[in-house]
Amino acid sequence: MAGNTFGQLFKLTTCGESHGGAVAGILDGCPSNIPITESEIQQELDRRRPGQSSITTTRSESDTIHILSGVFEGKTTGTPILMLAYNENARPEDYDELKQAFRPSHADFTYLMKYGIRDYRGSGRASARETLARVAAGSIAKKYLKQNCGIEILSYVEQVGNIKTNIDMDKVEQQHIELNIIRCPDKIKAEAMISLVEEVRKAGDSIGGVIRLIIRGVPVGLGEPVFDKLHADLGKAMLSINAVKGFEIGSGFAGVELKGSEHNDIIYLDKGRVATKTNYAGGVVGGISNGEYIYCRIAFKPVSTILKSQPTIDINNRDTMVEGKGRHDPCVLPRAVPVVDAMAAIVIMDHYLRNKSVKV
Amino acid sequence: MAGNTFGQLFKLTTCGESHGGAVAGILDGCPSNIPITESEIQQELDRRRPGQSSITTTRSESDTIHILSGVFEGKTTGTPILMLAYNENARPEDYDELKQAFRPSHADFTYLMKYGIRDYRGSGRASARETLARVAAGSIAKKYLKQNCGIEILSYVEQVGNIKTNIDMDKVEQQHIELNIIRCPDKIKAEAMISLVEEVRKAGDSIGGVIRLIIRGVPVGLGEPVFDKLHADLGKAMLSINAVKGFEIGSGFAGVELKGSEHNDIIYLDKGRVATKTNYAGGVVGGISNGEYIYCRIAFKPVSTILKSQPTIDINNRDTMVEGKGRHDPCVLPRAVPVVDAMAAIVIMDHYLRNKSVKV
Amino acid sequence: MAGNTFGQLFKLTTCGESHGGAVAGILDGCPSNIPITESEIQQELDRRRPGQSSITTTRSESDTIHILSGVFEGKTTGTPILMLAYNENARPEDYDELKQAFRPSHADFTYLMKYGIRDYRGSGRASARETLARVAAGSIAKKYLKQNCGIEILSYVEQVGNIKTNIDMDKVEQQHIELNIIRCPDKIKAEAMISLVEEVRKAGDSIGGVIRLIIRGVPVGLGEPVFDKLHADLGKAMLSINAVKGFEIGSGFAGVELKGSEHNDIIYLDKGRVATKTNYAGGVVGGISNGEYIYCRIAFKPVSTILKSQPTIDINNRDTMVEGKGRHDPCVLPRAVPVVDAMAAIVIMDHYLRNKSVKV
Amino acid sequence: MAGNTFGQLFKLTTCGESHGGAVAGILDGCPSNIPITESEIQQELDRRRPGQSSITTTRSESDTIHILSGVFEGKTTGTPILMLAYNENARPEDYDELKQAFRPSHADFTYLMKYGIRDYRGSGRASARETLARVAAGSIAKKYLKQNCGIEILSYVEQVGNIKTNIDMDKVEQQHIELNIIRCPDKIKAEAMISLVEEVRKAGDSIGGVIRLIIRGVPVGLGEPVFDKLHADLGKAMLSINAVKGFEIGSGFAGVELKGSEHNDIIYLDKGRVATKTNYAGGVVGGISNGEYIYCRIAFKPVSTILKSQPTIDINNRDTMVEGKGRHDPCVLPRAVPVVDAMAAIVIMDHYLRNKSVKV
Repeated sequence: MAGNTFGQLFKLTTCGESHGGAVAGILDGCPSNIPITESEIQQELDRRRPGQSSITTTRSESDTIHILSGVFEGKTTGTPILMLAYNENARPEDYDELKQAFRPSHADFTYLMKYGIRDYRGSGRASARETLARVAAGSIAKKYLKQNCGIEILSYVEQVGNIKTNIDMDKVEQQHIELNIIRCPDKIKAEAMISLVEEVRKAGDSIGGVIRLIIRGVPVGLGEPVFDKLHADLGKAMLSINAVKGFEIGSGFAGVELKGSEHNDIIYLDKGRVATKTNYAGGVVGGISNGEYIYCRIAFKPVSTILKSQPTIDINNRDTMVEGKGRHDPCVLPRAVPVVDAMAAIVIMDHYLRNKSVKV
Repeated sequence: MAGNTFGQLFKLTTCGESHGGAVAGILDGCPSNIPITESEIQQELDRRRPGQSSITTTRSESDTIHILSGVFEGKTTGTPILMLAYNENARPEDYDELKQAFRPSHADFTYLMKYGIRDYRGSGRASARETLARVAAGSIAKKYLKQNCGIEILSYVEQVGNIKTNIDMDKVEQQHIELNIIRCPDKIKAEAMISLVEEVRKAGDSIGGVIRLIIRGVPVGLGEPVFDKLHADLGKAMLSINAVKGFEIGSGFAGVELKGSEHNDIIYLDKGRVATKTNYAGGVVGGISNGEYIYCRIAFKPVSTILKSQPTIDINNRDTMVEGKGRHDPCVLPRAVPVVDAMAAIVIMDHYLRNKSVKV
Repeated sequence: MAGNTFGQLFKLTTCGESHGGAVAGILDGCPSNIPITESEIQQELDRRRPGQSSITTTRSESDTIHILSGVFEGKTTGTPILMLAYNENARPEDYDELKQAFRPSHADFTYLMKYGIRDYRGSGRASARETLARVAAGSIAKKYLKQNCGIEILSYVEQVGNIKTNIDMDKVEQQHIELNIIRCPDKIKAEAMISLVEEVRKAGDSIGGVIRLIIRGVPVGLGEPVFDKLHADLGKAMLSINAVKGFEIGSGFAGVELKGSEHNDIIYLDKGRVATKTNYAGGVVGGISNGEYIYCRIAFKPVSTILKSQPTIDINNRDTMVEGKGRHDPCVLPRAVPVVDAMAAIVIMDHYLRNKSVKV
Repeated sequence: MAGNTFGQLFKLTTCGESHGGAVAGILDGCPSNIPITESEIQQELDRRRPGQSSITTTRSESDTIHILSGVFEGKTTGTPILMLAYNENARPEDYDELKQAFRPSHADFTYLMKYGIRDYRGSGRASARETLARVAAGSIAKKYLKQNCGIEILSYVEQVGNIKTNIDMDKVEQQHIELNIIRCPDKIKAEAMISLVEEVRKAGDSIGGVIRLIIRGVPVGLGEPVFDKLHADLGKAMLSINAVKGFEIGSGFAGVELKGSEHNDIIYLDKGRVATKTNYAGGVVGGISNGEYIYCRIAFKPVSTILKSQPTIDINNRDTMVEGKGRHDPCVLPRAVPVVDAMAAIVIMDHYLRNKSVKV
C-alpha cells in the first residue's frame, strides 16, 4: 500500500536509501527452475552503474549484486529472491547543507511534509539509486522472456534536448544501442547528443530527452482489459521511473490528429499469422496485445540536480541558496535505458503469468 | 487480478457488457457518513450519457443509476456500494454480422484469442459503456473531495483533430466547460471543433483529440513514492480509459528540451504558503503532491467504429469487409470528459485515504 | 481493503444489506468457457435458502439469482460475473425497536462505533444474508473443480450442541448429507439433532455445533508456503463465516497431545502414488497439499438472535431490554453447510489458479 | 501472490532459506517517526533464538538483526524497512542424505512436487527459521501498539502434551511468562512441562501443545466485516505459523455446546464504558473489536523432526529410512511464543491503520 511493490504475480518490492546500508529488492512470484547467476544480473546493472562513462555521474559504486535467497544451485526455486547491493561510496557529508534547504524540483519538501522526517542524504529514498533493484529483478524477467518466450525488449535514446532522431524501429538491434555511451543507435545523432550533454555538463546544467521502448514477439493475449490494460500497466511502470513526465504508446499524441479511417489498423492474414497492415495501436488493442510490435515513448525531464546556485527556502521558511555538489548526471537517459528495459520486462512477465489462469 | 478493480483503499470493481443485463460497479472502501443521492450521481452520468447532443451517438440509454447497497437514509454506511444501470436499448441484432468478422482496431480479435470466447454484441466488455460505472463511483469521490477537502477536479477538451487551443488553465471554471456540447471553454475554437466533428460524422468517420485535466487544492503529501507515485497512478487511470494512447503531466514531452536551470521550479514563500514560481512539475514532485495545481494532458485516438467499409478477416481467417452501423460517436472527447474527471477523483480519493496511515 | 473481497485470482467481492435493495457479488477472475446456468447456481442457493425446512427461519425469500454479466450463451467469458438476488421479504418495521438498542452478541454496537452510522434493519451488512453471494460464486468453483479437476468438496453437520457423531469420513457421499434436514449423514444422530433443535426453537433459544469439511482429489502442490498456506487460507475463509469461532485441520487441537513419532505421517508408495499411511496432517504439509484428503472442523457458536428478553443498553447508554422477533434460525448449521462448501471451493479454485504460474 | 507477504497496510514480505545467505524481511507501510533500535528488535528475537535454553535446539545462531533501510537517526522514515540476519551456523552437510529422502510430515515432498526443485538444506524455505523476520517486524508493531495505543499483546504456553493449565487470563503479566524456559506462567505446571519436554528430548521424540494469546486494550472498531474480520485475519496469521493445526477465539470449540441464552454476552455500562458481562465472543463481534479482551488458543502439533529412524521413500520412489540428526527442538512452543506475539501485533497494527480511513 505504501507503494514499494510493483506487479501482481511477478512482484517486486524494493527498499533502500541512497546513503543507507543497502539498496535491495525482494522478487516474489518468480517461477522456479529458471537458471540465473549473479553475473548475468550484474551485466544489466553495469549498464545502469554510475561512472560508466564520461557523461555520467562520477559517484563510484560497484553496485555489486548479492543474491541472498531464492536461488539454489544456479536456479530459481520459486521462493522469494533477495537481491542486494551495499552502498559503498556514501558521502553523506556532501549533503550536510541539504539538511536544511529544499532543493528546487527535488522531493526534499514533499517528503518532509508527507512523513514529518526525511533522510536528507543524497535524496534518501527519492534517489534514482532505488532503480538498481528494478534492474536486478527486471534482468531475470528479461532473460526468461527472451530465452523461453522469444520476447525481446529493447529501448534506446531517441531524443536529447532538441536533437531528435528518426530511427527505423524495425531494424534496431540491442548491439546497435550499446555502440555509444548515449545509447542511441543513430551514430551521427549520438555524437551530437554526446556533445550536447558534455556542453550541458560543463555549464553545470542538465538536459532531458526521450527514450523509445520496443517489445517484440509478445504473443496475442497479454493484458487484462478494463483497468489493467497492458499499456496502462506499461504507462504506470514508466511514469514511476524518476524524472519521467510523459508516456505514449503507438500513435500517441500525434495520433489525435488522424481520422479513424486513417488510424484503423487493417487486419489481414500474413503467412498464416493474423497481422495488421499498419500499427498505430502500438501492439495493444482493447488493453490486450495483438501480436504486433509494442512501441512506446517515454519523456524524461532534465534532472533537478545542477551545479548552479539557485534560490530557495529552508525548513524554517527562510530564504537561502542551494547549489549541487560535484557528482551528478547531466543527462539521465543513457543510464535510464536499462531501467526502462527492466520495468517493461517486469510488466510483460507479470502479464504473461497472469494470462495463464484465463482460459480453461 | 483480472483487472476489473481500480484503487487500493477507495476501490472500484466494475462489471457488465454493452448488451448484457446491466453495467455496474461495487465501490468498496468509501468512508461512511458521506451524503449522496442517486440524482447527484445521475447528474455526472448525464454528462457521459449517449444521445446528449447532436455530436454524440444516438444510442438511447437513460443510464438510470440504482444504488442497491451501502447507502442508508441518504448517507454512505462504510459498506460496499452497488451502483447499477440496466441496459435498455440493446440491439444485439445490429451486431450479428460482427459475430464473424474482426473489426479493425477493435478488441474483437484480441478478446477472442485471449478468452477463446467473446460476447460480440456491441464490443461486449470492451465497450466504453463500462465507463458508466467509473463515472458513478467517481462522482462520489468528486463530491467528497470538493466539499470536504476543497479539492476541485475539472477537465475539458483542449484539442480536436488539429484544432488546438491555448487556454489559461488558471481561469477555467466548471461552468465554462459546460457552455458548449464539445466541452471546450474556448468558445471560438469550440465552434470550430463542433464543425469538424459534424463534418467527420457526415463522412462516417471519426477524429481524436486531447483532454486537459486540472486538479486544484490538493494538499501537500498525496502520493506514495517509488511505484505508486501520484502521477503514475493518474497515468494508469487515464491510460485505462478506452481510446487513450498518451499521458503527460506538467511539462511532459515538451519539457525534455529544457535545461535543468530552466525547468527547475524555484521554491519560495507566498503569503505563508510554500509555493513554486513556475510549475513545470505539474504539482507532483518525487511522486508526492507539492500543493501546486496538478495538470495533465490525455491523448485520445479517433474511435475505431466508422461507417465506412473496411477490409478485414473473419474468425475463419477468410477475407471479408466490415462497416459500422447507425449509431456511433464521431469523437468521444465530450463524453470522455466526465470519465477523466471520475478517474482523477478516484485516484485522488484513494491517495487521500492512503495518506492517512503514513504519519504517527 | 475494506474487507469485502476474498481471493487473489478467483476473486469475489460481495455487497448488500439484509434489507437493502439486493445482495450481490462480482466474481472476477473466473476462467472463460465454463458452462454455467442460473439454475445450477440456484440449486446450491436453495440449500442455503431460508424457510427450506421446519428448523430454519421462516423468512420467505426465493433468493432467485440473476446473472447480469460475464456469462454469454451459457458460458463464462472471462469477464466479471455479477450475480444478484433482490431482497423481497424485507420487513424493516420488525427492526424498528432495534434502531435504538444494541442486541447482545450482535454487531449493532461495533458497527455503530466503527462507522458512526448503521443500517439497523436486520443486522444490515452483518447479516448472514451476505453469504448468499458466497454460495453463488462458490457454486461455479465447486462445479468446475468437480467436473474438470476431479476435486470433490463436501461438508456436513458433525455435532449439534452436545450431540456428537463418529462418522467415517471416507464413506460419506453428498447424497447422504442431503437425506435429512439437519445435513448430518448419521441418520440416528441426525434425528436426535433435529429434536434438539426443535426443542431449542420452542424455547426461543439457539444452539451451536460443528461442521466437518472434506475435500477429496486435490492434486499435490496447491497452497503457497509461508503466509498463504492452503490451510491458513481455508481457516480464514471459514472464520469469515458468520458465527464461526474455531477452525482446525487434520489432527487439530487433539493432535497436540501426540508425540512426533505417533503424529508423523509415514510416506509410502501406494500403487504408484506417493501416499501417507496416516493423515494427521489433514492433506496439507508445509502449507501445500500432498494429495491426501483434506479435512477440517469448523465451530459455530449458537446464533445471537433468540426470542428471549435480554437486558442491554441503547445508543444513549440507557438500560433497556431486547427480544428477537418471529423469524430466526435456532441453529444455523444446516444452512451453513453450503456456505462452508462454497468458501472451500473458492479457496481451492483460487489456489488452483495461483499454482499455474509457479513452474516454468 | 506467491504468499510471502502478510498485511495490507502494515505489510511484511519475508525471504530466506534456512541455510541460504540470510533470512530477511521488508516491512512496508510502517508509519514514520516511530523510534526503534536494532537492540529493541534483538530483544524480541532473543526470545525466539535457537539455543536459548536446555530445551531448545542447539543450533547456534546469534540471529543478529541488521536494519539496512527505512530507519534514520533512530526513527522510522515511512520508507520500507529491511531487516536482515545472516545465516551463520549453516551446516548443509547435515542434510546431505535428505537430498534424496522425503522426511515424514516435512515439506520435502510437497515442495519438490510444487516447484520441481527444492533447497533441501534444513528444510530450506519451509524451515521455521523464516519466522525470525516475522518477529523482527512484529516487534516494531508491538512496541508501537503498547506505547502509543495502550495495546498489550502477550502469549504463553497453556498446554504441553497432556499437561493442561487453568490460568486466570486476567492476571497474567509479561514478566510471569518469562520466569521459566517453557514460557508458562503457572510455575508448577511449567516444571512438569519442562520435565516432559526433557523426557521427550531424551527419547529423540517431540511433543505438541497449545499457546494462549491475549490482546488487551484494543479500541472498539478494529476489523473489517465480511471477509477480513479481525479474528479471521488473526486465524490466518496463526495458521500460517509452522506446525499450527488449529485456532479458536473466545468460546471456540467448547462454545458450540452452549445455548444462545447462555452464550450471548450481555452489554452494560461499566463506569462509562460499554462493556459485556461475559466475554464468550473473545473481544470480536461481527468481525470488529468491541473493546473487551481478545483471547485465542493456537494448537501446535509435535514437530516432525525426530531422532528416531522412520521408513519413507526417496525421490526415485524407492523405500528408505530417515533419521533426524543432532539439533532439533523437541517442543517448539517456548520459541513460538514470540512468533505468536509478532503475528498478533502485525494483524492488530494492520487493522489499526486500516481503520483510519473508515470514518469521514
